[in-house]
Amino acid sequence: MKDLDSDKATIPSHKITLDQIKQFDFERILNDDPALKTLCLLGKIPDKDGSLKQPAIFNLEKRAFNAKLNDPHTTELLANLSNLTITGANDIYHWSTGWLGESRPADIKVSIISPCTDVHIKKHSKQKTHLVRETPELYNKVTLPFIQSFPASRTQWVRNILNGVSEQEDVVYTSPAPLGFTLLPDAKWDRKTLATLYLTMISKEPIPSLRSLRAQHLPLLREMRVSAEREIRAKWPDVERGTLRFFIHYQPSYYHFHVHVTHVSYNGALGMSVERAHLLDNVISLLEIDGDIFDKMTLTYALGEMHGLWKPMKEHGGWEDPSLQDE
Amino acid sequence: MKDLDSDKATIPSHKITLDQIKQFDFERILNDDPALKTLCLLGKIPDKDGSLKQPAIFNLEKRAFNAKLNDPHTTELLANLSNLTITGANDIYHWSTGWLGESRPADIKVSIISPCTDVHIKKHSKQKTHLVRETPELYNKVTLPFIQSFPASRTQWVRNILNGVSEQEDVVYTSPAPLGFTLLPDAKWDRKTLATLYLTMISKEPIPSLRSLRAQHLPLLREMRVSAEREIRAKWPDVERGTLRFFIHYQPSYYHFHVHVTHVSYNGALGMSVERAHLLDNVISLLEIDGDIFDKMTLTYALGEMHGLWKPMKEHGGWEDPSLQDE
Repeated sequence: MKDLDSDKATIPSHKITLDQIKQFDFERILNDDPALKTLCLLGKIPDKDGSLKQPAIFNLEKRAFNAKLNDPHTTELLANLSNLTITGANDIYHWSTGWLGESRPADIKVSIISPCTDVHIKKHSKQKTHLVRETPELYNKVTLPFIQSFPASRTQWVRNILNGVSEQEDVVYTSPAPLGFTLLPDAKWDRKTLATLYLTMISKEPIPSLRSLRAQHLPLLREMRVSAEREIRAKWPDVERGTLRFFIHYQPSYYHFHVHVTHVSYNGALGMSVERAHLLDNVISLLEIDGDIFDKMTLTYALGEMHGLWKPMKEHGGWEDPSLQDE
Repeated sequence: MKDLDSDKATIPSHKITLDQIKQFDFERILNDDPALKTLCLLGKIPDKDGSLKQPAIFNLEKRAFNAKLNDPHTTELLANLSNLTITGANDIYHWSTGWLGESRPADIKVSIISPCTDVHIKKHSKQKTHLVRETPELYNKVTLPFIQSFPASRTQWVRNILNGVSEQEDVVYTSPAPLGFTLLPDAKWDRKTLATLYLTMISKEPIPSLRSLRAQHLPLLREMRVSAEREIRAKWPDVERGTLRFFIHYQPSYYHFHVHVTHVSYNGALGMSVERAHLLDNVISLLEIDGDIFDKMTLTYALGEMHGLWKPMKEHGGWEDPSLQDE
């Protein structure tokens, strides 16, 4: 399916050489994530003839260990360390830092966008995030008009998938029910590595989001849960029963109801965090108890300051101190 | 507060030298996380006199970039790369891998447990995880007896904090209400770095878990939400309004109700994921709609195979194919 994080093919091609990369002229740090060991730098690199400097974004990421049982890189890892420093010790616990040996695999992955535009820079910059509390009233006053402000063309690519116009070679399963769903791999996934498995189920019915789910959608939601696990395990037999995480983003990145599927062993993705996502199974249980619960709930979620909802939400009180709301 | 992941002071002290580390005798990989770039190895290291080999766990982690604006390690990062290889290109997008230069900061952090026991090995081994569906019936049949099987001594450390016996120098705030809570930093946090902020609120009333929350607990939950943000921002003024994530684990690691607090910019911790945690604000909203909702809900969550609940839960049907439950 469409990779929402790319806008390829809009700017003419421009090949880069190693020599250009080495001449990177550092300007500033756009983002970093100490947990994931990533770093995003903005700067300039010279044109091939060295006459003109082009803006460039460098996304750096430390590489994983990729340890393998019989690989000398793994078995000799500690023997090949150099300059180890013991930084602390307590009883049986010891801490140190060190350098990997000369024969180590590459240290980092680098992905480069050049020439980059202001849109790229904005997208790759760290943005401040705030939690907002969306009451049903705020949904009607702020979120619904926001959703309705998008032209239908914005989700044409979704309808193209559902109508069989595009990406049909990728579709894993389409449920026969008229109000069913289509299941296909996400562009982020290589379709092989189980630990990074990522698929998406798109509802045929154009339900805008979690907020619009009612008791009438329970047959669809139950079918998604059961059929997706069955079909994924049929296609990727190494996926064991009960190891798939089904979750729903709120806010979603597009307003046509869809459910994300990842493997439970996959950690570290921000989109699966409690302030951004809801587990499909818990959503089903809530609707079974009260079919109108999402018409009544105050939904709390994180919004980046660059999100289109942040400004109106803040202006209408979605960011009030909760003590003011409670009194 | 107590670091649940340590069992220091139970085994006599044993200092390690760099020479011993370099002689590490690799046995097997216990765990790895490609997203967080960590690796856990089991093996043996020789005694100081080289006569006896002791079992040792090595937890390795690639270090973050720790980029700083005027640090030559950052500004010269790309210029100092060696052996860059362009692995792919498409339009303005380019991918490559490379080695960091000679003058780079240390590559890895290493933490060592030696001599280690089978308990350590089990704790650091990757365990298979499954999602289970805990109906109210399964809670009463399986989870409640599991909770009741623990001796009261297991949560004595919690009561020691609440009663003012231990860790009083750490307490950030204790609410005056008789059914209030105590707020204190988690052992994982250095009490400085905002991005890794981690505190815990412990209820004075011994509510076992999320499952036992009812409408009567709303005053406590609302007070937790409001007072904790106020007190944390008073003590750490750089924390901005609406940037704290309050969440509740289910299953929790101990059965005395507590709420975790982290910064919204902190990613990558498994414990904040939808299959393990619930946002405090959403829990409050659900209880406002239906004060008995946690007496009715089927709660779905991830359980590692080494968790004490996994075996009984599986035996009693918590791991059934959901299609069987629906029919």
